[in-house]
Amino acid sequence: MKNILILGGDGYIGWPTAMHFSRKGYSVTVVDNYFRRNIANELKIKMLYEVPSLVERAKLWFEETGNEIKVIIGDLTNPILMRSLFTGEGLIFDWSINPLTYTPDTVIHFAEQPSAPYSVMNYETANITISNNLIVTNNLMFAVKDLAPNTHIIKLGTMGEYGTPNIDIEEGWINIKSNGREDTFLFPRQAGSIYHTSKIMDTDLLWYGVRTWNLRVTDLMQGPVYGIETEESLIHPKLKTFFNYDEVFGTVINRFIAQAVINYPLTIYGSGNQSRGYISLQNSIECIYLASLNIPKAGKLDIYNQIMETLSVREIAEIIISSASELGYKVQIQNIKNPRSELEEHYYNPKYSKLIELGISPKLLNKDSIKQMIIEVEKHRKNIRKSFIFNGIKW
Amino acid sequence: MKNILILGGDGYIGWPTAMHFSRKGYSVTVVDNYFRRNIANELKIKMLYEVPSLVERAKLWFEETGNEIKVIIGDLTNPILMRSLFTGEGLIFDWSINPLTYTPDTVIHFAEQPSAPYSVMNYETANITISNNLIVTNNLMFAVKDLAPNTHIIKLGTMGEYGTPNIDIEEGWINIKSNGREDTFLFPRQAGSIYHTSKIMDTDLLWYGVRTWNLRVTDLMQGPVYGIETEESLIHPKLKTFFNYDEVFGTVINRFIAQAVINYPLTIYGSGNQSRGYISLQNSIECIYLASLNIPKAGKLDIYNQIMETLSVREIAEIIISSASELGYKVQIQNIKNPRSELEEHYYNPKYSKLIELGISPKLLNKDSIKQMIIEVEKHRKNIRKSFIFNGIKW
Repeated sequence: MKNILILGGDGYIGWPTAMHFSRKGYSVTVVDNYFRRNIANELKIKMLYEVPSLVERAKLWFEETGNEIKVIIGDLTNPILMRSLFTGEGLIFDWSINPLTYTPDTVIHFAEQPSAPYSVMNYETANITISNNLIVTNNLMFAVKDLAPNTHIIKLGTMGEYGTPNIDIEEGWINIKSNGREDTFLFPRQAGSIYHTSKIMDTDLLWYGVRTWNLRVTDLMQGPVYGIETEESLIHPKLKTFFNYDEVFGTVINRFIAQAVINYPLTIYGSGNQSRGYISLQNSIECIYLASLNIPKAGKLDIYNQIMETLSVREIAEIIISSASELGYKVQIQNIKNPRSELEEHYYNPKYSKLIELGISPKLLNKDSIKQMIIEVEKHRKNIRKSFIFNGIKW
Repeated sequence: MKNILILGGDGYIGWPTAMHFSRKGYSVTVVDNYFRRNIANELKIKMLYEVPSLVERAKLWFEETGNEIKVIIGDLTNPILMRSLFTGEGLIFDWSINPLTYTPDTVIHFAEQPSAPYSVMNYETANITISNNLIVTNNLMFAVKDLAPNTHIIKLGTMGEYGTPNIDIEEGWINIKSNGREDTFLFPRQAGSIYHTSKIMDTDLLWYGVRTWNLRVTDLMQGPVYGIETEESLIHPKLKTFFNYDEVFGTVINRFIAQAVINYPLTIYGSGNQSRGYISLQNSIECIYLASLNIPKAGKLDIYNQIMETLSVREIAEIIISSASELGYKVQIQNIKNPRSELEEHYYNPKYSKLIELGISPKLLNKDSIKQMIIEVEKHRKNIRKSFIFNGIKW
């Protein structure tokens, strides 16, 4: 039985990933410090519905499936905690049947401050983002080097690292020919927020560790994720992951679905021609699982562009309006001044074939998937507060 | 009178830079927390000679020249201190005649953990390096954005950010043509230590700030610096900057000079064919001064490769041996197993014409300059401890 350690296991993707591996028979340990819940509380942001604590969800998962997910609540910027995950020394489980008695075969690292708007609110939130994200990654890298050099690290990066260059975006690497010579480099990165820049720094750091210490790392350049349910969350309503529709944590598709449900116009920032790559939550966890099966050679940094399609904000708005209208909603578009510093008209042609070649079946954004989301979000309509949707945080 | 703020003004280059601007009639304020002195104490490393505190040196400078250098001792990872440098609020000067009553025209940022070997000793020193270097840079960037958006930031980067690619190293930027399209990007960066990687992250961060907030930043990709005296330090013997010959803080030329003086064989790591770009201390501060005169447009990141020549370790050893022999020393070479993870045979062709075009007169490493250094180091021969020179810190 393979052992999977998930850092940031309470999060939007972390928890569905934990259930996915657990259902497939892996021994799963999750670690989280409720950092995201805490900053949401500080900002007085509520999710679409209450989500039980990680400990409660793990207990419920065990009751429903008989599979144990070990839970550790703690701060991974503390290197002592990080290292204990590889040695078992001094670990306190918040809920578990068996102690930790293994070295993880795979570590999946989600333990980062995930909000771009939060990262640029002010110097404090920027500092928190940089130090949290980098120190967790560095603690992980040193723990693997020192204690478990064969452990496979899977890191969640972001397509946002690349920005919107005027050339095709390759999958992680680019060969550059210059003055009759050539070499291969990380594809150039230039991101649109401090959060996204912290992910570039993660890549810089992991690439250093990989080529210096022969680590095995997969870096997943993921696009914005949308969706609520995954196969495992359907087992019990309280197993559903977070759903945010606010401007701090809500990604655009999830946010627009909530807006449609309360007849709040879809707020298009600027022209709406900004294109990005998108992926459903179900596809996201399938990709992570697939990445775990494809272990890089020692000293190799594998990078996948984890998106299933590219869409402009306007295209997203239009398909949501059209899907919502089939359910009786009359939703408008509202064009507002772009609070973000980003190109509104730009070339965007990322490559994203590697995960599909490895066997992922892409689920595209379509009327069916949108209508399913609308029907789910409708159940919680009374919880949606308009005041969360747009306050114009600039970035 | 232009106002210059120097962060990390106690350091090897920081202090000579402060004197240089002061002598040219600028109003100079220096900030330091003695971080480098403190870690040297922790590691029980001594410099070639005792260097008075920053406060004592500023007083001496005033006595000798009549020019005031304001001194603030404090930790710039604290954003409150950083911001007070732009507002004057709550500032406590350790030595000054006049309070701070200005916004700096130029900030020169040296306030970083500067040792590559220290950065990779263990996870703690790596974390200290990353969080110190990144948080100071981020605090600076936000302070300038929020409080002094026209202030010119000059950042000390390193040629080590580029590593040793198999193509020519451009001055900061590269135009990439791909599939019939093209765009200009930061030249690819892949460094050889956590310290050097933290400098890549600085570049990532500043480039974000420049293009998002229209900051004016000059990033100096500097090679290893050698030398002791500058024009200003000759005014009084106690104005000399730090001189380290140990494996943690000593750069290769300074270290080899000290080894020659005590007839300790010059320790060549591996083949000795590793090439890097080098610059003298005198040229370094001249380049920084020149950079301050060439203010980038708002939203532009100017990058200069701040080196005057490229040399292999073997070439450096040979010219030092030959210079030392003219002073009566018989120095040997000792080839030792390379404790660093680096290519020993590699292409190395960095471009470095911009600063020379702006008017720098390159001072190259030659027998005269080496003999001057040897004569200076000889005066402190009794202080040199062999045990500092090589302990095989791996990186």
